[in-house]
Amino acid sequence: MIIVLRENTDKGKLENLTNWLTSQGLKLHFSEGLHSTILGLVGDTTAIDIDLLKALDIVEDVKRIQEPYKNANRKFHPADTVIEVGGVKIGGGTFQIIAGPCSIETQEQITSVAQSVKDAGASILRGGAFKPRTSPYSFQGLGAQGLDLLIAAKEKTGMPVVTEIMNLERLPLFDKVDIIQVGARNMQNFDLLKELGKTRKPILLKRGLANTLEEFIMSAEYIMAGGNEQVILCERGIRTFETATRNTLDLSAIPVLKKMTHLPVFVDPSHATGVASLVAPMALAATAAGADGLMIEVHNDPPHAWCDGAQSLTPQAFADLVKAVQGIRPFAYSYQKEA
Amino acid sequence: MIIVLRENTDKGKLENLTNWLTSQGLKLHFSEGLHSTILGLVGDTTAIDIDLLKALDIVEDVKRIQEPYKNANRKFHPADTVIEVGGVKIGGGTFQIIAGPCSIETQEQITSVAQSVKDAGASILRGGAFKPRTSPYSFQGLGAQGLDLLIAAKEKTGMPVVTEIMNLERLPLFDKVDIIQVGARNMQNFDLLKELGKTRKPILLKRGLANTLEEFIMSAEYIMAGGNEQVILCERGIRTFETATRNTLDLSAIPVLKKMTHLPVFVDPSHATGVASLVAPMALAATAAGADGLMIEVHNDPPHAWCDGAQSLTPQAFADLVKAVQGIRPFAYSYQKEA
Amino acid sequence: MIIVLRENTDKGKLENLTNWLTSQGLKLHFSEGLHSTILGLVGDTTAIDIDLLKALDIVEDVKRIQEPYKNANRKFHPADTVIEVGGVKIGGGTFQIIAGPCSIETQEQITSVAQSVKDAGASILRGGAFKPRTSPYSFQGLGAQGLDLLIAAKEKTGMPVVTEIMNLERLPLFDKVDIIQVGARNMQNFDLLKELGKTRKPILLKRGLANTLEEFIMSAEYIMAGGNEQVILCERGIRTFETATRNTLDLSAIPVLKKMTHLPVFVDPSHATGVASLVAPMALAATAAGADGLMIEVHNDPPHAWCDGAQSLTPQAFADLVKAVQGIRPFAYSYQKEA
Amino acid sequence: MIIVLRENTDKGKLENLTNWLTSQGLKLHFSEGLHSTILGLVGDTTAIDIDLLKALDIVEDVKRIQEPYKNANRKFHPADTVIEVGGVKIGGGTFQIIAGPCSIETQEQITSVAQSVKDAGASILRGGAFKPRTSPYSFQGLGAQGLDLLIAAKEKTGMPVVTEIMNLERLPLFDKVDIIQVGARNMQNFDLLKELGKTRKPILLKRGLANTLEEFIMSAEYIMAGGNEQVILCERGIRTFETATRNTLDLSAIPVLKKMTHLPVFVDPSHATGVASLVAPMALAATAAGADGLMIEVHNDPPHAWCDGAQSLTPQAFADLVKAVQGIRPFAYSYQKEA
Repeated sequence: MIIVLRENTDKGKLENLTNWLTSQGLKLHFSEGLHSTILGLVGDTTAIDIDLLKALDIVEDVKRIQEPYKNANRKFHPADTVIEVGGVKIGGGTFQIIAGPCSIETQEQITSVAQSVKDAGASILRGGAFKPRTSPYSFQGLGAQGLDLLIAAKEKTGMPVVTEIMNLERLPLFDKVDIIQVGARNMQNFDLLKELGKTRKPILLKRGLANTLEEFIMSAEYIMAGGNEQVILCERGIRTFETATRNTLDLSAIPVLKKMTHLPVFVDPSHATGVASLVAPMALAATAAGADGLMIEVHNDPPHAWCDGAQSLTPQAFADLVKAVQGIRPFAYSYQKEA
Repeated sequence: MIIVLRENTDKGKLENLTNWLTSQGLKLHFSEGLHSTILGLVGDTTAIDIDLLKALDIVEDVKRIQEPYKNANRKFHPADTVIEVGGVKIGGGTFQIIAGPCSIETQEQITSVAQSVKDAGASILRGGAFKPRTSPYSFQGLGAQGLDLLIAAKEKTGMPVVTEIMNLERLPLFDKVDIIQVGARNMQNFDLLKELGKTRKPILLKRGLANTLEEFIMSAEYIMAGGNEQVILCERGIRTFETATRNTLDLSAIPVLKKMTHLPVFVDPSHATGVASLVAPMALAATAAGADGLMIEVHNDPPHAWCDGAQSLTPQAFADLVKAVQGIRPFAYSYQKEA
Repeated sequence: MIIVLRENTDKGKLENLTNWLTSQGLKLHFSEGLHSTILGLVGDTTAIDIDLLKALDIVEDVKRIQEPYKNANRKFHPADTVIEVGGVKIGGGTFQIIAGPCSIETQEQITSVAQSVKDAGASILRGGAFKPRTSPYSFQGLGAQGLDLLIAAKEKTGMPVVTEIMNLERLPLFDKVDIIQVGARNMQNFDLLKELGKTRKPILLKRGLANTLEEFIMSAEYIMAGGNEQVILCERGIRTFETATRNTLDLSAIPVLKKMTHLPVFVDPSHATGVASLVAPMALAATAAGADGLMIEVHNDPPHAWCDGAQSLTPQAFADLVKAVQGIRPFAYSYQKEA
Repeated sequence: MIIVLRENTDKGKLENLTNWLTSQGLKLHFSEGLHSTILGLVGDTTAIDIDLLKALDIVEDVKRIQEPYKNANRKFHPADTVIEVGGVKIGGGTFQIIAGPCSIETQEQITSVAQSVKDAGASILRGGAFKPRTSPYSFQGLGAQGLDLLIAAKEKTGMPVVTEIMNLERLPLFDKVDIIQVGARNMQNFDLLKELGKTRKPILLKRGLANTLEEFIMSAEYIMAGGNEQVILCERGIRTFETATRNTLDLSAIPVLKKMTHLPVFVDPSHATGVASLVAPMALAATAAGADGLMIEVHNDPPHAWCDGAQSLTPQAFADLVKAVQGIRPFAYSYQKEA
């Protein structure tokens, strides 16, 4: 960490600062520039709050040199994290497709979708039981009953399942769930992250709509700091000025995250775009850029359950997409080759 | 709500759609344009999910005409909401200043700051016990013990207090707290909002960093839908491309929110800017634009507790600011006069 | 276009509005909702200024139904535009790679890069003579002399060339240039666009850093309204809160633009990311999503000319990339199949 | 400037880099951290391109310590720039209001508005002759004829005038114009900025919709590098995800710019918000935050010329606003007191 001091700083305040920094176990290097003095901090600066340093009146600016995350940092753990769940390997050069309906509706629906996406090549089943909705007047999911339907579908098809948790009080209900999803709106629900850090279940962590990649990894670090190292990162679009799509899918997040961290990186093109016709091109793009997997919404019967299924692919469209994905995979960017 | 249909739409799909809409109690009006047919929905469209309609392949676009919120809507409740807490009136043409330290540190600290901000003109005391921090390695607040210190300061000074809740499990601890704050990162923690809707305590709801004003009001609507109508909205900066400030304080939110809703609108210039030297100009600006109040960080002894107090105003700077605020108030934009 | 009127509108003002609208050749349809009256405009609303209508005090909101662009609109011209330049076809299911150095430096450099990118599979040569630079103290390009070197490289290699124009006074210098590029910062330099609309040269128009896709097409419309229908759109990243990359490459722009317009859509991953290591994964992603072509920076000798070439690919890295692009092409999303 | 080197950097590449840096007249300081080596550059780094350094493969990151602007930098010119035009002083603790119509329509209109805003307290007249419009089908201004009407109004009222230039070919027409405005879309039209740097007329430079404050000052630096030091900066809103206002007015730009530079800082609340009802609260806010002046749209006869005047204030609303502004001024934040 580098602290740029203002010209003619108050000596007493500077001494306060340097005493405090050395008490934190850091060594200090001073170097004089033309118009400012720079204070270099050598040692573990992970716990130093950069915003608080910036606010000091003797400080002009603070620049972080070392990343504020340790467990998730590829520098300290060069090898890819590989997560195994129900016989399926995630990360480390594998490629997995998570598919299923946005909301779990009935036993027949979830089982039928599960079977068709499995047949098409998906290896993990998704389905929402607790749904975060912007409006209190919208359908909020089947809740605990939905979880039961999902588990039944898991048992019938043999597919591991992933579903979203919205608050830590519900954690006991997720006992038979294979992967717990943390939604974009909860990416910085720190109490929830801490609690999930105490479990030993894989966590699929979605990027918040306004969160930087560094903050994204810091949220993974919250889980990992609790001892749970099985975190899957999932890019799902960020909020920008563009209104033609629901969110802007940030695919450059794939190569940047692969460099910053050893954790697997997935992409969810369904939520990012919000429209079925954009899902396939964005899924192919994510594959080509070297994502470790995809998460895609599929609904079995859009004409009847139209109001919920319409933003999803049909099983047939999904099957066609999987074939194109498989065609692209051999030519996709490979981060293993690079390393 | 207006649905723009694609040209040459499939008749069967259109019938599915119109049947479903009429089953929701809506009346339909068709009108033909040059290149598209428009379907107007008359009735209460609050519960209609606009994204799902947009995803239908026979639909080109959907435009909402009526706002998706009812309880918070000024159209249906023209008079300002006035909230009374510990003898202090919030909203309805009053102006209140909430002040206090970012984090509660010791009994002496919180009581001393409380007394000095009260003397300077603040009417409500703030102080953080549970702190949401980006890094798991940063200080996370004193927790339940901090709440005790805050309540003691309340009892000594007679000031009502506001402090942040981070998860609904902690709600029983907030019994003696006058106003419960929901932080920006939890603005769409819907389970927490629902639970707060069941209480009868005023809620200070901060705007999320990437949330539109409509979403902000929808989160207030979550609380109000539960029966708790005492919601204070607080603008605290949004995330933009600009890096010169921590966030971009969106002061146009004041006039826009005052038009959309009857709830009081506060502004927190301390968190938005992150630097003490920007707090005063932004506090004065918010006052001039007609905010119903301010929320400002003040620390009693920045030199010693420097690492936490430095982004805060000193009690003296705060007292000077309050005087300037009082000078501006008679000339501030008045939404009462307008109505 | 739909105008939502406020409740209890002033009759005189409403009459002024309806008289003016009918004088513009529009037919009006009124329909009454629960809390508002809606005025539907039937006819050509392209020239109606939506912001001005929104500003009227009797108007609550205005929603555009018909797109504000005509010449560029796929609705009115379903077939892909195909542009032919120096024997190279752009658009209509073809795929072309534009490659070359950021800045033209010497005759040897530009010719050598041209030959190596041609050998690797590029069909069009790029090279900057006039460089828009944020700082007045940075190198601003070789200017007219650079254009001469580029034309010489064209003559030696037989490749058509594209280079950027920064102001309309320089237009006569671009006589032998095959495609004129308008940079992101000039996307809304309307006087320049109008002048280019009078030429009959293909224009490569880059998306502005903060411009929506609709505005992007409106700038193409400026050129097309002058009679020049040969416009190539190029996505090159937008500005968001994320700082890990220079800009955020918006690849969902590809499917959205392909739906809105019949013009060819290219992607420039070099400028968007700013770092060589991100170019290849993003180029592959753009290919998979169905772009009509790529624009990539390549420099022949990064070690010596390091300060300029470092953000570029080496000829070898470029050749490897082209092979992977060719592997992906047969599986890329096809907008022709869709139509 | 600080260069963070990767671990185990190639010695030959490092030598290339250090040789080049010393050839630029910089002194180098090396310091070893735990996981990286830091290279500090001492000397004038203004002309060093930070993006190019970042792109080197031996470089992990580059952090600028010294600002990339000199002439505009308050560090080197602590005293406020004061610009005098037609007897009106801008900057240095003064406060000026620029007012007038969006577009010049007729002689009667511009003269009448000029007289009424002068009577109300405005000191400078604005009016658009060349209008940048998103659509080629919208009214583009009266052009040269409009300039004549503006000059006539100047002569009748004695007010200095400001109007926008869109391309450098038109510069000779601006001979009698007192202040030349560069619009937001041309903030990085570098050829235009260079040309204006050769004139000796005050330039009112508007912030681009997606430009950082540093880039804003760099554009002023372009003008100043040419010898023209009379630049007025004008904040007019930035583009964010929020759609409730046309743009988001960034009022924290005022205190930040006042610290970075000695140039006067104005605010245009009319264009930022796009709606007349938001102009007054935002104008008062800008005043309270310590702006050096305002730029406000006023139209004399909104009912008749409604389609253009509606987003403007009426002369009466403007006069009321000026009174409130004058009430706030004595309590506004003062950057002179601070310095």
